[in-house]
Amino acid sequence: MPFATPIPPVTFTRPLFCGVLANTLISTVPGVSAAGPTPELTLLTPVLDSELIVHGAITSRPVRPNTPTGCPTPASITRAMVVLSGVPVVFVNAGLVHLPVVPCLDVYGEAGKDPRTGDAVPAAAALYQKGLLLGEFFSQVSDLLVLGECVPGGTTTALCVLRALGYHASVSSSFVKNPIAEKEAIAAGVLSRLSLQEPAGPLEVVRAAGDPMMAVAAGIASSYKGSIFLAGGTQMLAVAAVIRGLDHPVPPVVTTCYVRDDPSAGVMETAAAVGATVIIIDPGFGDIGHHGLARYCIGDVKEGMGAGGALFLAHLMGHTPEEIRQAVIETVSAYT
Amino acid sequence: MPFATPIPPVTFTRPLFCGVLANTLISTVPGVSAAGPTPELTLLTPVLDSELIVHGAITSRPVRPNTPTGCPTPASITRAMVVLSGVPVVFVNAGLVHLPVVPCLDVYGEAGKDPRTGDAVPAAAALYQKGLLLGEFFSQVSDLLVLGECVPGGTTTALCVLRALGYHASVSSSFVKNPIAEKEAIAAGVLSRLSLQEPAGPLEVVRAAGDPMMAVAAGIASSYKGSIFLAGGTQMLAVAAVIRGLDHPVPPVVTTCYVRDDPSAGVMETAAAVGATVIIIDPGFGDIGHHGLARYCIGDVKEGMGAGGALFLAHLMGHTPEEIRQAVIETVSAYT
Repeated sequence: MPFATPIPPVTFTRPLFCGVLANTLISTVPGVSAAGPTPELTLLTPVLDSELIVHGAITSRPVRPNTPTGCPTPASITRAMVVLSGVPVVFVNAGLVHLPVVPCLDVYGEAGKDPRTGDAVPAAAALYQKGLLLGEFFSQVSDLLVLGECVPGGTTTALCVLRALGYHASVSSSFVKNPIAEKEAIAAGVLSRLSLQEPAGPLEVVRAAGDPMMAVAAGIASSYKGSIFLAGGTQMLAVAAVIRGLDHPVPPVVTTCYVRDDPSAGVMETAAAVGATVIIIDPGFGDIGHHGLARYCIGDVKEGMGAGGALFLAHLMGHTPEEIRQAVIETVSAYT
Repeated sequence: MPFATPIPPVTFTRPLFCGVLANTLISTVPGVSAAGPTPELTLLTPVLDSELIVHGAITSRPVRPNTPTGCPTPASITRAMVVLSGVPVVFVNAGLVHLPVVPCLDVYGEAGKDPRTGDAVPAAAALYQKGLLLGEFFSQVSDLLVLGECVPGGTTTALCVLRALGYHASVSSSFVKNPIAEKEAIAAGVLSRLSLQEPAGPLEVVRAAGDPMMAVAAGIASSYKGSIFLAGGTQMLAVAAVIRGLDHPVPPVVTTCYVRDDPSAGVMETAAAVGATVIIIDPGFGDIGHHGLARYCIGDVKEGMGAGGALFLAHLMGHTPEEIRQAVIETVSAYT
């Protein structure tokens, strides 16, 4: 397939990449998230990934920028594209357990709580308002925004939110084998709790069942005036569903072919249901000559930290697929 | 006098206003700072001022945006100019006691400690590095930067830093009557402590005797690639002195005529000593028809939160002195 599926016409002179960082305590439930060497350490991944993107290396902790199965973290791909394209990068701290190592636009939120036992994001409405402010600021300093996210466990909160919003969706996973049973059990528990207190609208659904990233990202997307692309898989489809529920225009979603090809996720069906155009990027990792990247093709990692969107942005900025692949392989080879 | 003293030639298309917020615990020493109704409440002023600039009102606490003597906080002036000019505004949290109400670029610093008893900013070198990162980001999204600050008690840390760097400087004050004796006593105590452990360079001086704003602002100014103006009085002269000590070009300093005319401060002499060009803005508050603003002319408040720089920026963007004065009076009239 080509490097990218058809892209709607877009003109821009001032692109910006923004990564929204958050935690949800659901990532500490064993078996839910592959985004860290242990369930507890998944909480640290947004901090380490943003450090890697800004500094090109992780020095704040003695860890390697690889997944437990030896794949380069998708933040490596984002890092490679940021360096290749020279695009400005900014991170938003929507609610983290650990302090970031790099400067972040902080909305002074808290990490998301376990939605099975109570409201996951009590401040969802306030975080949405903060997101609106950020979208206004980004509108003043850019005319194209690629909005990525890093939320370990976020596909599980995405499942909860999509279901609570009435979509018969399934979601992807950073595991090769999607822990569907675990996620479905969590979603069932959450929906059962919500059935007692029917949330009134999309932000109430995020409050009850989502994560802080969703509220902030929906706010940014709702007020941004330039061209915006949601960079991610099923987590960004949940954000798109929230945006649709708020009666704002649903931005296109950009992700990798590895998410699209996840048979457990049904990305294209969910995208159609939420009214999101999907742009698929195929960076051709199968024959790129790197074992860990090739594993993306069998469904390991697949996407994350806006990697698909970062590849898309480099493509939009005129870099050839070969330059892009070369930049990725050089970046990941530097630390393997 | 004219609205502004001569301005060096500058061309730009993408201006940005940045306010660096920080606390120093020296502001809680009674008599040191006028930037709050009580010494303890001076710690809250950066949070309230940034809220006012972003939202046009303070609703997070039951306070009025006036000083104890009935003057509009200088953040009102900054607010008026931001609305008039439509310039993008971003705040940096360099180290605060209280959580901000508006999103801030957070460098995850801590409030500055009392420099009489130990290192004031133990993380000064790391904060400077974070400032360098911010300056690089700002360079990507703007070509003219007005860099203001809000640090209650900051003229006292400025005095300590200027003296420790070897300047025979005095500093201004937000009081009509500059508490010179209190500041000199603090500076003498700090210099006496430092005489035992002679700081090695300008960042070590900030570490020992300064506040977090200085480290971050010096970093931003050191890496910013466009036209940069330090917006403030003697506090920004201390930042300029740090920048000079680091062998980076010293940016021009923009402040109000009310700071220049403070006979206790010697602004022009200190500026000459640190090698900073000074641009003076005279908004003509004496006959603007507002009692609280007129008090600026007798030395109350004088400056703060980059107000002089914000007036300068509106002027640079083509707004007439009359439009500027009108915008200020409308803003402050809305809450008196």
